[in-house]
Order: sequence, then C-alpha cells, then structure tokens
Amino acid sequence: MNAYDRLCARFSRIATIQEASSMLGWDAAAMMPPGGAAARGDQLAVLAGLAHGLLVAPEMGDELAEAEDGAGGLDSWHAQNLRLMRNLYTRATAVPGDLIEAQARANSACEKVWREARRLSDFGLVRDHLAKVVALMREQAAALAAVLGLSPYDALMDGYQRGIGAADVTPIFADYEAFLCRVLAQAEERQAAAPNPIQLTGPFPAAVQEALCRSLAERAGLDWNHGRLDRSTHPFCGGTPTDIRITTRYDETDFSQAVMGVLHETGHALYERGLPQAYARQPVGEAAGMGAHESQSLIVEFQACRSDAFLNWLGPELHRVFGGDPAPYAPENLARLWRRIGRGFVRVEADEMTYPAHVILRFRLEQALIAGDLAAADLPAAWNQGLQELLGITPPDDARGCLQDIHWYDGAFGYFPSYTLGAMAAAQLMAAARRETPDLDAALGRGDLSPLLGWLRTHVHGCGSLLGFNELLRAATGKPLDPKDFEAHLVARYL
Amino acid sequence: MNAYDRLCARFSRIATIQEASSMLGWDAAAMMPPGGAAARGDQLAVLAGLAHGLLVAPEMGDELAEAEDGAGGLDSWHAQNLRLMRNLYTRATAVPGDLIEAQARANSACEKVWREARRLSDFGLVRDHLAKVVALMREQAAALAAVLGLSPYDALMDGYQRGIGAADVTPIFADYEAFLCRVLAQAEERQAAAPNPIQLTGPFPAAVQEALCRSLAERAGLDWNHGRLDRSTHPFCGGTPTDIRITTRYDETDFSQAVMGVLHETGHALYERGLPQAYARQPVGEAAGMGAHESQSLIVEFQACRSDAFLNWLGPELHRVFGGDPAPYAPENLARLWRRIGRGFVRVEADEMTYPAHVILRFRLEQALIAGDLAAADLPAAWNQGLQELLGITPPDDARGCLQDIHWYDGAFGYFPSYTLGAMAAAQLMAAARRETPDLDAALGRGDLSPLLGWLRTHVHGCGSLLGFNELLRAATGKPLDPKDFEAHLVARYL
Repeated sequence: MNAYDRLCARFSRIATIQEASSMLGWDAAAMMPPGGAAARGDQLAVLAGLAHGLLVAPEMGDELAEAEDGAGGLDSWHAQNLRLMRNLYTRATAVPGDLIEAQARANSACEKVWREARRLSDFGLVRDHLAKVVALMREQAAALAAVLGLSPYDALMDGYQRGIGAADVTPIFADYEAFLCRVLAQAEERQAAAPNPIQLTGPFPAAVQEALCRSLAERAGLDWNHGRLDRSTHPFCGGTPTDIRITTRYDETDFSQAVMGVLHETGHALYERGLPQAYARQPVGEAAGMGAHESQSLIVEFQACRSDAFLNWLGPELHRVFGGDPAPYAPENLARLWRRIGRGFVRVEADEMTYPAHVILRFRLEQALIAGDLAAADLPAAWNQGLQELLGITPPDDARGCLQDIHWYDGAFGYFPSYTLGAMAAAQLMAAARRETPDLDAALGRGDLSPLLGWLRTHVHGCGSLLGFNELLRAATGKPLDPKDFEAHLVARYL
Repeated sequence: MNAYDRLCARFSRIATIQEASSMLGWDAAAMMPPGGAAARGDQLAVLAGLAHGLLVAPEMGDELAEAEDGAGGLDSWHAQNLRLMRNLYTRATAVPGDLIEAQARANSACEKVWREARRLSDFGLVRDHLAKVVALMREQAAALAAVLGLSPYDALMDGYQRGIGAADVTPIFADYEAFLCRVLAQAEERQAAAPNPIQLTGPFPAAVQEALCRSLAERAGLDWNHGRLDRSTHPFCGGTPTDIRITTRYDETDFSQAVMGVLHETGHALYERGLPQAYARQPVGEAAGMGAHESQSLIVEFQACRSDAFLNWLGPELHRVFGGDPAPYAPENLARLWRRIGRGFVRVEADEMTYPAHVILRFRLEQALIAGDLAAADLPAAWNQGLQELLGITPPDDARGCLQDIHWYDGAFGYFPSYTLGAMAAAQLMAAARRETPDLDAALGRGDLSPLLGWLRTHVHGCGSLLGFNELLRAATGKPLDPKDFEAHLVARYL
C-alpha cells in the first residue's frame, strides 16, 4: 500500500469507530435505562480516545506528507479526500492535550450548573463557569487559528461548516436583518387580518401518530431496511449511512411536532443515506458540513412539506388517519397552523421568518465573546439589548434569554450560524430544483417527494464533501449562498 | 502507577471496549434493520481488533512479569486478578495471527454453508467445510495446549470454563449416564400413568405476555433502572453489568417459552448485576465462566420457577393475567406441562432429565474430533450411534442429528459441557441454599425469589472470578461439582 492508501485504511478505521460511537449515542438517547449512563460515558470516552489516537498517531505527519508528495496522480475526489485528511489532522493536533482535557472538565461542569441556572433563571449561578469555558475556548480558537491561517472565530466555525467564515456570513445576515425590518410587521398584520387557525383537538394516540410518521418518512424516501424510527426526549437523526436512526416524541394533544419533526429528521436521514457509497468512511464521503446538513432537513420540512402543494395532499391524509371534524385538516387551516409567525423569545419555538434573528443575535454575541470584546458577565444585558434591536422584544427572564440554549455552556461556539446557512441554502436549492424539475410541485401535491429527492441526490447528497458549502451551492444553483432566494420564499409564503 | 496498576487500567480499557461491542451485539439482534448488518460486522471487527491489540501489546509481557515480581503485596482478589490477566494474555498470544485469520474465514464460510446444509438435511454439503474448521481448531488447540500445559481439548474447554477439563467431566458424565439408564424408563412410565396435561389455548397477546414477563423478571430481582427487556429471534442476555439487555420472543398460542425464557435470561442477568462492583472491568470481577453462568439461569428457571412451591403461586397469577378457563393454570397441570420428559432428537427442545444425554454425546464426539480419532466425514454415523446408545433413539435425518447445532460449524469446541455443568451446579447450589435458608421454599410459594437471590449474591454473584468453578462450589456447598444433587433433584421431581 502507498501512503495515501494507508491513510484511507486509517480513516476508514477511524470512521468505523465513530460509527460504533454514533450507535451507542443513539442507544443512550432512545433505549438506555438511566443506570447505564455512567458506563456509557466511559464507553464513548474510550472510543473517542481510540479514534483520536489513530488520527494523531506519530506516523501520521510523515504519511500525510508522503501522500501529498504523490498527490499528482489522484483524481478530484481523492485529492479532496487528502485535503480533508490534512485538515482533520491539523485541527486534531493543533490543540494541546492538556487544554482539551481542561475544556472537557470545564464544559462538563458548566453544562451541569447551566441546567440548574436555567431552571432557576439565575445567570449568576453559571456566570463564572461560562467565563471559564469562554476563556479556554479562546485558547483553543487561538491555537486553531494559528495553524489554519484563520481568525480565531473562523477557526471555530470551520469545525462545523468548513470554508465558511464570519466574512461570508456577516453581509448575508445584515441583508436579512434589513429584510426582516421591512417585512415582519407587514407579515404580522396580514396574518392578524386572516382568520385564526382552528386548533387541532386530540387525543391523537401515540401509536397512531407513530404509524403515520413512519409512513410519511417512507413516502419521503426513507427505507426501513436501512433505518429505524424510535422515541427520545430530544428528536434527532443518528446512526450511520446504512443504518439511520431517527427519533421523535409524541404529544397526544397535538401531532404537529411529531409529524414535522420526523419530516425534518428524515431530511437529515436522506442526506446520510444518499452520501456516495464509493467513498464511505472517507472524509470526502461525509456530509458537506452542518449548514449543508441543516439545508437538507429544512428543505424537506419547510420547503417541501409546508408548501401549499404538499399540504393539499397531507390535509385529507391526516383526516383519513385521525378522523373527526374535517375542519382543522383543511389545507388552508394547516397552513395557518404550521406557518404562523410571531416574535418570541425562544429560538427553538421560532417560525422560519424570525428564526434567523435568533441566530444573528447569537452569531454576534459569540463573535464578541471569542474576540474578548464581551465578558461572560455582561452576556445577559447584551443579549436582551440585541434581541430588542432585532425583534423589538426583551426576554422577561434569562431562562427565556441567554440561558435558553445549551450550546455555549457545553462549549459549542461557531455552530449557531449553521442553522440559518441551512435555511437559506434550502430555499436556494429548492428554487433551483423547481427550475430544473418542472413536475416538482405537482408531485408534492400528490404527496410525492421523489422528484425533489432525485434532484437532491444528484446535486447535494451524492457530492459528499467533494465541494465546499459555497462551491456546492454554486454547482447546484449557479451561485454561492445568497439570502435572496430565502427572502423571496418568505415573501411568497407570508406576504 | 506501578506495573499492576497499569495493567488494571489497560484491562479496564479492554473491558470498556468489550462493553461497547456487547451493546452493539444486542442492538444487532434486537434493533438493527437488516441493511445495517454489513457495517455492524465491520464495527464489531474493528472493536475486537482494538481490544485484542491492547491485550497483546508489545509491552504487556514486561508489565506482567514486573507485576508478578511485585505480587507479594497483593491481596487475594488482586493476586487472582493478576493470574487471570496472565491467563488471558497467554491465550491471546499463543495462537499465531495467520491461524486466527484462517479460522475466522473458515468458520464464517462453514457457518454459512451449514445453514443451507441444515435446511436441506444434507451433511455432504458442509462436510469438507467442517473438516477444515476442525483441522484449524486442532492447530489452535495444540498451540494453546503447549503454553497452558493442558491437553488440546482441555485447552479449548479452559476458554469457556476455566479450570475444568475432560478428566473432571468424564466421571461425572459417566455417573449421569448410568443414572439415566436406571431412571429414565421408570420416569416415563410414571408420567404415562398420570393424566395428560391440559394444553394452554390462546391467543395470548404478545403485549400481555411482555408485561407479564417484565413483572416476573422484576419479581425475580431485576431492576429496570439497569436493564431492558426486548424481542429477538433467539432469546439471550446481553449488555453490561449496569445495563443488562435481555430478550425473548412471543408465541401468541403459548406463553410457556416466553415466560420460562425470560426467567432463564433473568438468571443470567442477575448474575451480571451481582458481580462485585469494586472489581468492575477487571478479569476477577467477571462471571466465573460459562458453566457458572448457566448454573444461574438454570437455578432461576428450573430449580426455583418450575418448583412446586413457585408453580403454586404462578398458576393463579397466570390465570389472573390471561383469564379464561382456570383448568390449564392449576399448578399440578403447569407442572405436567413444564416438567414433561421424553426422548427427543433435538437438544434445545430437551427436558432437564434427557438434556445431559445430548451434551454427553457432543462432549464425546468433540473430544474425538479434536483428538483426531474421528473424521468430520464420519460424524453422522458416530452421532446416530451415540444417541442410540444414550437415549435409544436414532435421528430420522441429519437436520435432527449432527446438523442441529451451530456450535461446531462456527468453530466452538469445548463449550457444550458447560450446559450440563451448569445444570448440575444449579441443583447443588439450590440444595445448599435450601439448607441455609429455611424460608426459601415458603418464599417461592409467595412468588418471592429474594431469599434465593440473597444467598446467590453472597455465594456466587459477589465472588466474581475470585474462585474457580469447583472452588466456588466447594465454598458455597461444601464440595466440588457432584452429580448426586442433580440426580436427587430429578428423582424427587420425576419419580
């Protein structure tokens, strides 16, 4: 074997260990009894250590250099694969082991205290823990920045959505902020003038919801020969490309969250299922980043399944399943229920129009935290002021303010932009798919997502990580990320 | 850290990887969609390779030697732990890597063909594959024998039930064969003279059976905070000591298999749960071997739960759960149903009296195969002759003869005796528990297994691998394995 082949074998081994971790993570959320948690933590830590050890092994530097010397003979997939290997190695070796350990301890301690602080809405409880997490994260960002040739914050973003930095996101977010300022009040007025939605009234038995979710996911393209649907407190998509595990939860008074949640996770699942088999377990065979992944969940959930066309099919289908008064299931009523906008304090409850405002707030604050321009102690005031500027509302307490998300308290900085990159990319991809697939909406009107899925498989899923985020969008839609398609989508849907 | 502490850390890491494998194995049987099988195989192979790599690492020889030099300061637990580490290392390093690989390939190929051969009842199909498996297993046995100072067959047995060899088992099996010759016909006559059991008539909904099994396992002492009950084609007990996963299957026409199967697996589970926490993930903290493990499933299923006392409680309980005609649920009828003896061809369907005959047959044949005294090609004739001698019956075809068990075709030699060692140990332990726990049967009559469980925790579960099989029995019952208690149990129950 030559150096590149040895690297491929090593990365395949690493990916296989990570597959095992992914399955154990799914089990921990969906199956594990509480008494198994301590041992599971150990198992995941040991597997992570083994994967890390393979990535930073002493011979890796030489193998990468040798493979790079011979890279002239590699095709574009393998050349990109080698670049991604180098990036992973550079990231993994940039941060000293004792810093990683200090971060693991600080993040874990902070996250525990955060749960209590959020429950009591008492930021003071967790303030010093967060300050410690931020201080260590700044060290990590500086270490990564030095070897990656990026700014510290960009070095963190790069870990979630490679190739996208603050300079890409800032003008896009500024554009969106201005857009929101123009249209939000108008959309709210229009909504207020329309009839109130008729609420769904249950009970909707969990087993019936589950069977429905299963059939909708299948209709969207998921193959149960390679996947499962189970229950967990926090819905997610886990598992591996040939064994996808999606989860949801069931509220017997309202099936909206289960149905839309499963369609969202199905979008993630279809991406994993559609990754290029020929590069399985290689970096180039993985999804193109968190923003790209979110685009695939949102294109299914928001672009396709909340479209007029799909709701026209879904309404009667839901009434067939649940029976009772047909009025709530009228497609126009479902549209009013599931496309309702409003200024709220909580990101995870936000509609698709105001959601980016929550992300923009966090993007600005986490940049300031990492730059050292904002002290952790000053976060609540900065948060409240920022939300006031963006949405004209101020949280009544920190539980509904700067304590609402786990991310920072668990040491995740640079992730938040991915949500909105994904939402915007979803709209941009949908617009392109519509242009190139004339029967796309007609098919959605028959509850058929297959033309959309076919287009996505070719233009997104099958590309793995061959292209960066903007390059992927350029190849698929003719331009890099552009907020205009998302804005046009919102105007068409809400104005 | 001194050498022994470093070894403990290493073995803890190995055990943690094995825990991950165990959970993934459970998932493969109970949860995984078929399309996940190929990737799961890779995951398990990589984890096995990592664990093996830690066990046979170049520095291990020196570390063991250094720890053994300083072993004078170790207490009995740690001294035994070190001996077990040495045994594991010796076994793992005795067999050359290319032989292990050749065996993996041969066993896997043979097992696949065996499925077809069994289906068609055509031994000729698999004959040459089996010959290859046996030839390689003889090489492995010779390699192990050389370093362990045991005979080749004993070296294989030692891998399943340490410290027990053919010389221990042979007289015990001879004694039992003579016993069976004396009592079987007599027991059959007695049974024939008694009324036929009234058969259970369903349907018994799977969900109701499952709830019942859950409550019975809980009553036997299983804590769902540290375990789950799920479904799989082949019932088993998997998982880890703090997260036990037991499985069963439900036949809606008869709950016998589910109920007794879950009680059996609960016995295994309680053993794992009761292992000494202080030595978790160390060799000395593990169960004392396959025979010991089987004794714990059988003491719950056969000794406790098929006893008159327990059936007196269980009958009305079952009638309460399933309703209908009370006649089949009368304790004496359940005894007739669940303690029915008869000469059959198939081991897994055998009653507790004739089961050892099936094991004795396999013990003799696999000894001859490993010794080279029996060619694989001659197995069907030897099988049929052996069963005729032991039970006076001859299988009508090889599917119900030498093709019925997966074990040999998958490369497991030396395992079969464990079943009967377990059955005999269960009777011996039960007799001792009864002597020392006066209210044991009274409690069983109230559906209460806790006095038995308390005794087992002290005398078996909590001992881990501190003692060998016979030493454990000697400490718990005053004597090494002795078939007389099992024989007395059968006489009391069937004559």
